[in-house]
Amino acid sequence: MSPERLARITNMLNYRQPDLTVFLEQVHKAHNLAAIVRTADAVGVSDVHATWENKTTQISGNTATGSQNWVNLHSHETLEDAVKALRAQGMQIIATNLSDSAIDFREVDYTKPTAILMGQEKHGISPEALALADQDVIIPMVGMCQSLNVSVASALILYEAQRQRELAGMYNGECRLPEEEAHRILFEGGH
Amino acid sequence: MSPERLARITNMLNYRQPDLTVFLEQVHKAHNLAAIVRTADAVGVSDVHATWENKTTQISGNTATGSQNWVNLHSHETLEDAVKALRAQGMQIIATNLSDSAIDFREVDYTKPTAILMGQEKHGISPEALALADQDVIIPMVGMCQSLNVSVASALILYEAQRQRELAGMYNGECRLPEEEAHRILFEGGH
Ligand SMILES: C[S@@+](CC[C@H](N)C(=O)[O-])C[C@H]1O[C@@H](n2cnc3c(N)ncnc32)[C@H](O)[C@@H]1O
Ligand SMILES: C[S@@+](CC[C@H](N)C(=O)[O-])C[C@H]1O[C@@H](n2cnc3c(N)ncnc32)[C@H](O)[C@@H]1O
Repeated sequence: MSPERLARITNMLNYRQPDLTVFLEQVHKAHNLAAIVRTADAVGVSDVHATWENKTTQISGNTATGSQNWVNLHSHETLEDAVKALRAQGMQIIATNLSDSAIDFREVDYTKPTAILMGQEKHGISPEALALADQDVIIPMVGMCQSLNVSVASALILYEAQRQRELAGMYNGECRLPEEEAHRILFEGGH
Repeated sequence: MSPERLARITNMLNYRQPDLTVFLEQVHKAHNLAAIVRTADAVGVSDVHATWENKTTQISGNTATGSQNWVNLHSHETLEDAVKALRAQGMQIIATNLSDSAIDFREVDYTKPTAILMGQEKHGISPEALALADQDVIIPMVGMCQSLNVSVASALILYEAQRQRELAGMYNGECRLPEEEAHRILFEGGH
């Protein structure tokens, strides 16, 4: 491994946020998936979770421009078990929801361990997913459209989390991953 | 026109930001264009400017989910003349640029009249566009990817502008459009 590549990977590892994740409920357009994985990588999120409408849906390798090698996309059979597992890890579950009862997305404290639930392109988040969440949030809109693109909405929330975590010193370059995992990734990345 | 529709359009007009715009330099993927126009609408931007790689590039009506009826997409032959016209309107020109010399996008004062220049998917912003800008900005990234998707990057900057303008009372529901234009849009929207 070249010294430049080693430095780049080490740097990436030092900014990873193991307690921040995104959960995609049946998001199925390849370009949306790719954009979300790329944004996750950019803010230091290394795990993205998903359920699929059907088994044939797949992330397109080309459009994610390599980030999928550094972000783990976990596929789940059911949302319920997966969300319970995240909650067992101490995560708060925040659902994005185009509803009058949802609070402004900037009012949430994202410095806490957090999983963000994103809904399907056409149907949005399911009632089941909403029922599993601690809080639902909305990104304010003042135009004529009903909703934002799902990769855009994901990015706005992830970068709000990044902003809050930066202020809280959570991007100070001190590795927050378990040592073993950091070593594994470093080792695998060199090959 | 139904009273609900009248209320919805009037409300939209009261939040429009005539002194905030986006300039797309040869962005060509239909899903990116559609997502950008949709986000523009959502933050109250009613004018989006663009130059094209070739004349056949067109925004796809379907994917913009109706927002293109409420957002004017202005096509320009050359970037230079169009940027000069925006500057003549008193706009600061902010270019997004993946460079070490660019400042953090959150450091800019977006309450000033502002045009945001976005670059092409593959090649990014041109040296000519950079030369025309007052300032270049970057969205911080700590992962392995080189860049964000262009519609994601546009949204992050537009919503930072929205955040600042909201704090400055620029979304207080008092119509900021010239009266004639507001009337014209209201009239056309009823048909
Ligand atoms: C295109 S939207 C789904 C629209 C669907 N008709 C609905 O009512 O939910 C796809 C997903 O993007 C996210 N999203 C889009 N706009 C949003 C907003 N303004 N606030 C919060 N989430 C949003 C949500 O996760 C949503 O489920
Ligand atoms: C996919 S990027 C272009 C990548 C190109 N290789 C380059 O070096 O510019 C497309 C556009 O998205 C915007 N963009 C993407 N990531 C950005 C970031 N981190 N900061 C600012 N703008 C960004 C810029 O407008 C850029 O020109």
